[in-house]
Amino acid sequence: MARDPALTPINARPHAPVSGLRLPAIRPIADAMLDHGLAQRLQSPTRDALALGRIQLLAQQLARIQHGSPQPFDRLVLDAPQLVVFAADHGLVDEGMSDQPQATTHEHVEQLLAGVAPASALARQHGFEVTVVDAGVATPISLPLTRPAGQLQPRKIGYGTRNCRLGPAMSQAQAVSAIHAGMDVVRHLPGTVIALGDIGVGGAASASLLLSRLCGVPVVDAFPRENPNAISLDDTLHWQRLDKLQAASQRHALAMSPIHALAAFGGFEIAMLVGAMLQAASERRVVLVDGFVVGAAALVARGLSPNVADYLVHAQRTAAPPHRLMLIHLNARPLLDLELNINQGTGALLAWPLLLAAQALLGSAA
Amino acid sequence: MARDPALTPINARPHAPVSGLRLPAIRPIADAMLDHGLAQRLQSPTRDALALGRIQLLAQQLARIQHGSPQPFDRLVLDAPQLVVFAADHGLVDEGMSDQPQATTHEHVEQLLAGVAPASALARQHGFEVTVVDAGVATPISLPLTRPAGQLQPRKIGYGTRNCRLGPAMSQAQAVSAIHAGMDVVRHLPGTVIALGDIGVGGAASASLLLSRLCGVPVVDAFPRENPNAISLDDTLHWQRLDKLQAASQRHALAMSPIHALAAFGGFEIAMLVGAMLQAASERRVVLVDGFVVGAAALVARGLSPNVADYLVHAQRTAAPPHRLMLIHLNARPLLDLELNINQGTGALLAWPLLLAAQALLGSAA
Repeated sequence: MARDPALTPINARPHAPVSGLRLPAIRPIADAMLDHGLAQRLQSPTRDALALGRIQLLAQQLARIQHGSPQPFDRLVLDAPQLVVFAADHGLVDEGMSDQPQATTHEHVEQLLAGVAPASALARQHGFEVTVVDAGVATPISLPLTRPAGQLQPRKIGYGTRNCRLGPAMSQAQAVSAIHAGMDVVRHLPGTVIALGDIGVGGAASASLLLSRLCGVPVVDAFPRENPNAISLDDTLHWQRLDKLQAASQRHALAMSPIHALAAFGGFEIAMLVGAMLQAASERRVVLVDGFVVGAAALVARGLSPNVADYLVHAQRTAAPPHRLMLIHLNARPLLDLELNINQGTGALLAWPLLLAAQALLGSAA
Repeated sequence: MARDPALTPINARPHAPVSGLRLPAIRPIADAMLDHGLAQRLQSPTRDALALGRIQLLAQQLARIQHGSPQPFDRLVLDAPQLVVFAADHGLVDEGMSDQPQATTHEHVEQLLAGVAPASALARQHGFEVTVVDAGVATPISLPLTRPAGQLQPRKIGYGTRNCRLGPAMSQAQAVSAIHAGMDVVRHLPGTVIALGDIGVGGAASASLLLSRLCGVPVVDAFPRENPNAISLDDTLHWQRLDKLQAASQRHALAMSPIHALAAFGGFEIAMLVGAMLQAASERRVVLVDGFVVGAAALVARGLSPNVADYLVHAQRTAAPPHRLMLIHLNARPLLDLELNINQGTGALLAWPLLLAAQALLGSAA
């Protein structure tokens, strides 16, 4: 019996080295002496040792990240914060993975560049510079003519990824290029904090496949319902999508390593997010991670360079069970739990004041 | 057989009117027209209807509070925010209700007035004026000589409440005076937002007894362990405290109404918090509620005037199960969940930027 080629797993040569990938070195940040000093500064004999709870742990993480020198730690420096939003389209939308048309990706990019997205309002409020990176939107992107609210970086790897139910979303060479491009974007940005966001219809589907593959989670538990607030007894559409994601997952059953899974499932924005995280961590910058898609990039980045996890501050948990699962696998306890259902770095910007609070509390305790 | 007088319930005359209590009128804030307009401003055809999740609901609540006029709603006004911290001592500490000595109350008041408490750093960061109200600290309080970081309002009802295992914590006249004093404090403060905090060793014990009585929760489920982070297999102390709280609860088994329960279990700071909330709500101000003790005041205030609940923004949930239970009874979903174990309004100040975010998002959506 002839096998349907669409059902045959692609041989991803899991043990083949990935040619050309250059990753920056990332140092671990554990520092018992620093921790001891911080605990003394943040604690008081008239209070519980962990009175400030998670803010105390956040202050500790931030101090560990910034304490690179042998001098005693002085204070947290949180200046010139950057919001970097990577945008790309996904071939999986051909399979009906989203209620939104693909053109929404372009629209969201334009809204952010025009300064009318929710994230724009928050970026203005907190003095974030906004950079929108066209990692691979399916249409040409240009800056608005009147006073853009952010930088546009054209780094298109392609006009959307390919449909990963039929073949790999991108070639390995493309994955490597995208990671390098993400590194390059961060390398040229100032500041001590990089908040990362994403735009892209179908991005959640790619993120689900990565979560499923890299963490051994069944696809059915890895793919969030698109609209958790919708009141609907008819889940047919969701189960149809799961069937197609299952097929895509089986198609790439041999793509086990982080980089092979990334190439198999996409997307371009996720690959660039991986590079951005790795570069930021190698420069001892704080990486503020938004939602599900950026979280998937964190899974890949951790697979490539485990120390990166020390530099990630997870901003928020959405209501979607797959995101909760992902955060558990990331060993992350996010700062906020606000049932957001929006990307573009919105959640990262909402969490930002808690970093400033940690800074104020450490500073005043000196 | 003669009954032990300490075990005999005090007749609190539950149906007797409370003489002299004057409560302000509080209007309900539901407004379907406003909600419709807000939804149109915050939603976008390219996003899920509740994309901003709880921030959207927060924006709605704040707008409802401030939309008092028949004019169309313009924008949120969050100016001259006030942190008001009520401090008092509790007779229950005689029963060993806290690991902290009673003098810690005085110390915490001094730290806040001197501007060295964690809440002081956050108040400076966000431009809150700080008012510390001496509702009934067991020692005289005076302002620090050098540049106090807050106002001190001397409103002492007594030098600590009485031990409520032996008799009522305060007389009904004292409870009424304290509520009126809390109203008066807020009446003389400017601004559209009142953040409420508390200081007082033993305050959690009073709050537990109020939670138990007003919500029908067993005392054993209403009293939080003092130090949830301590690693201890020896819970003897906690169970001893529960025994004593049980006895106190039985002693006042007939104090069923909010005001009778408040007088029976205390404390002075809780009574003033009740007044502060009611007054702030009657003036259509936003009331930012911190942790467990302020939450207990919210239970009493709601019992006296149910509409007050519309004006309460619950800042944070601690890790303590009784606090989670209290918030469920308050029908409250707090903004933050940071495992804090500190009062003084610290959690309210940490949540404040989310109110500013709601303001920015509503403003930019106009």
